[in-house]
Amino acid sequence: MSDSNSPLDFYFDFSSPYSYLMSERIDALAARFGRKVRWHPILLGIVFKANGSAPLTLQSTSKAAYSLLDFERSARFMGILYRHPTRFPLATQNAARAYYWLHGEDCALARQFAHAVFRALFIDDRDVSAPDTVLEIGAKIGVDRNRLEIALQSPEMKERLKQEVDAALALGVFGAPYIVIDGQPFFGADRLPQIEKWLETGGF
Amino acid sequence: MSDSNSPLDFYFDFSSPYSYLMSERIDALAARFGRKVRWHPILLGIVFKANGSAPLTLQSTSKAAYSLLDFERSARFMGILYRHPTRFPLATQNAARAYYWLHGEDCALARQFAHAVFRALFIDDRDVSAPDTVLEIGAKIGVDRNRLEIALQSPEMKERLKQEVDAALALGVFGAPYIVIDGQPFFGADRLPQIEKWLETGGF
Repeated sequence: MSDSNSPLDFYFDFSSPYSYLMSERIDALAARFGRKVRWHPILLGIVFKANGSAPLTLQSTSKAAYSLLDFERSARFMGILYRHPTRFPLATQNAARAYYWLHGEDCALARQFAHAVFRALFIDDRDVSAPDTVLEIGAKIGVDRNRLEIALQSPEMKERLKQEVDAALALGVFGAPYIVIDGQPFFGADRLPQIEKWLETGGF
Repeated sequence: MSDSNSPLDFYFDFSSPYSYLMSERIDALAARFGRKVRWHPILLGIVFKANGSAPLTLQSTSKAAYSLLDFERSARFMGILYRHPTRFPLATQNAARAYYWLHGEDCALARQFAHAVFRALFIDDRDVSAPDTVLEIGAKIGVDRNRLEIALQSPEMKERLKQEVDAALALGVFGAPYIVIDGQPFFGADRLPQIEKWLETGGF
């Protein structure tokens, strides 16, 4: 087991299927090794543009067909519910801004909110790009709807999200989920076995 | 365990690091479930062009840096020797043509040759794009150098490789390693745990 107990950093986009799969596993895995996880919603649209890339389902017909199959099969393999969203990909700046505002208010509630957004999109097929859906998801877990509505439009939250995306790009994030443990990057939900071994052994 | 005992199809490029990792594991894994594997060397350059894609190390600075780290870490995780080649990526049509010609002569020898090419590139840092290196690798395992030299230039082997690449594209191959089991595609060495479960259960 590693000597370090510093937190893991988890970069994700709320519209990323593999990020959703990672979100359902990473906290419990880290906790087994006495670690916490810092969640960082970012915007893959900007990240892809900076890296000359694109969403998997828009890269080629063959890659799109495989990706749709692999999202669902990987979810079944991991024992996680998954229904591919009708609208995909979709914009997630409202959900991300809501997360950062909530995190300043109550970080446990922010984590609960993030899970609720992922599950609304990937289980209940909700349009989480819409501000109303984001407000409704918040309201269900006790977030003040009026304050959240103001926060979604606030220049501070727009700037905060921009800074998080810039920081992720500066770190070398090119896709999601992207996990950093003691300076070591891991890309993709399929790196969970390597993440587990890394936490267990402190490096291999 | 699946009722089927039909062979797996393994599409790869001799210059693909994750294909090399897969090549060191797939035969033994399939054998545990009474299955054989048909190996299909293809040319990723043509596959990427058809899919508007590119080698991982040429996509963006961030993705290149991560990929170099992940090739070596994934190899260590799997317990496989790996040294990133000085020349990378590199052309593999000579190795692929040699494979198909040898397969017509002696399929066990062709498999031995394929392992030798992968290891020459990813352990010994040899330039396997050069016809001389391919001939030398063949000679070491008992392949007639003169006959192989003629085969490398034969229109039949050029045509055979072209047909294999076309068939892979028609099947939906967009990268490598790409494994097909009973019509079910699996992309990447990191899908080995899913492949194992699929072989074990006949689908999940």
